[in-house]
Amino acid sequence: MQPGQATLRAVPMFERLDKAVLAELDAIADLRDVPQGQELCRQGAMPTALHVLLDGQVALSGTAPDGTSAVVEVVRPIGHFVLAAALTDLPYLMTGHSVMPSRLLLIEAVALRELVAREAALARAMLRAQALDYRVMVRQVRDLKLRSAAQRLGCYLLALATDPLASTAEFRLPFDKGLLAARLGCRQENLSRAFAALRAVGVETHGARIVLHDMARLKAFSMPDELADPPLLTEDAAG
Amino acid sequence: MQPGQATLRAVPMFERLDKAVLAELDAIADLRDVPQGQELCRQGAMPTALHVLLDGQVALSGTAPDGTSAVVEVVRPIGHFVLAAALTDLPYLMTGHSVMPSRLLLIEAVALRELVAREAALARAMLRAQALDYRVMVRQVRDLKLRSAAQRLGCYLLALATDPLASTAEFRLPFDKGLLAARLGCRQENLSRAFAALRAVGVETHGARIVLHDMARLKAFSMPDELADPPLLTEDAAG
Repeated sequence: MQPGQATLRAVPMFERLDKAVLAELDAIADLRDVPQGQELCRQGAMPTALHVLLDGQVALSGTAPDGTSAVVEVVRPIGHFVLAAALTDLPYLMTGHSVMPSRLLLIEAVALRELVAREAALARAMLRAQALDYRVMVRQVRDLKLRSAAQRLGCYLLALATDPLASTAEFRLPFDKGLLAARLGCRQENLSRAFAALRAVGVETHGARIVLHDMARLKAFSMPDELADPPLLTEDAAG
Repeated sequence: MQPGQATLRAVPMFERLDKAVLAELDAIADLRDVPQGQELCRQGAMPTALHVLLDGQVALSGTAPDGTSAVVEVVRPIGHFVLAAALTDLPYLMTGHSVMPSRLLLIEAVALRELVAREAALARAMLRAQALDYRVMVRQVRDLKLRSAAQRLGCYLLALATDPLASTAEFRLPFDKGLLAARLGCRQENLSRAFAALRAVGVETHGARIVLHDMARLKAFSMPDELADPPLLTEDAAG
């Protein structure tokens, strides 16, 4: 099913494109609803489509030759994945699974590359999206090398708090603790130890419910980055 | 000093550009020789130039608010850095230092963004370079989450062997062990432990000289990725 231009325009990386380009994107795009646990792309396979997540949640995992696997990223709406593979026609580096029922927009890779070669505005929009994707990964590398699992968990919880300037926060974890441990790059028993360590800085947990009693102390302990990128691609691609 | 078109064409991401675009790049580029230990860009500062390393070596580090720092990447010639910052006009995420006397090509960021907005071929070339940069970081995240320090060291040594299909290899480490530990995301004492662990799979070290006596065993232990991207950007950007 074609998504239509209104749906496409709601995707941050497409929001500045004019109608003519959106119409061309619409023609090569397909809306798809998938159940929980569906494999969407597989590490090592050649890319068939750029995936945009409109609703639901997708885990992207990398697997070592011995079968060990780790979650590189959890995508939440509206996010996209496998942009780099789709643009370069190089194999997927990650396997993607829906971790809940999800709605996706699939944009056919060959046709997308053709359109990018023809439409300078789309190329610039993709360039900005790809640059921001790169920066997300750089932050994660920095995080993995600089911080303990407890600090990484603290940063992650702080990022989930809706008002970063409040002194306290209360929310539910958006996914289960197994996935959270994998995303943070630690085993589940280390995640439990990390939650235990965070109790001393005012983090209370009841299952998936989290209370941050003292965000200033949690920040002092976790040292979140002060450099946050803008969440939306409100600027023209690279101009 | 202007680098000239021949120098620019030797940079993988520029190799397919026509003369007119190279001439425009040349006009906004500057060749610079720097001594060892020179700071080239600083985390948190606004980007002034895309940096291309023609000769020498540059370490890119991330620093946490408490001053702890980690090496995200070591750039070797011909490589580039801070492309994403220069294209998006967002602050540098890393601080760059020359770790030996180096020769750089600086391409002025504001003028580069203007040129990218005007020249579709350049936008496509940058898009491909940025996508490949992204994939390098994804591999590193996967590596940090999936592998022990000894396995990461093994993968790194295997990547340095000039003939990946040979059964043995001998070479010198391209930089000192302090930098190697930082790049691998471990402390120097853990690097020593990692080298000790690799002795059992045929890795011999004498200072900076490394002998891999049994690359098959080292591969079985370290599980390097089988998906390597092409080292050069020989394809048109996204076509």
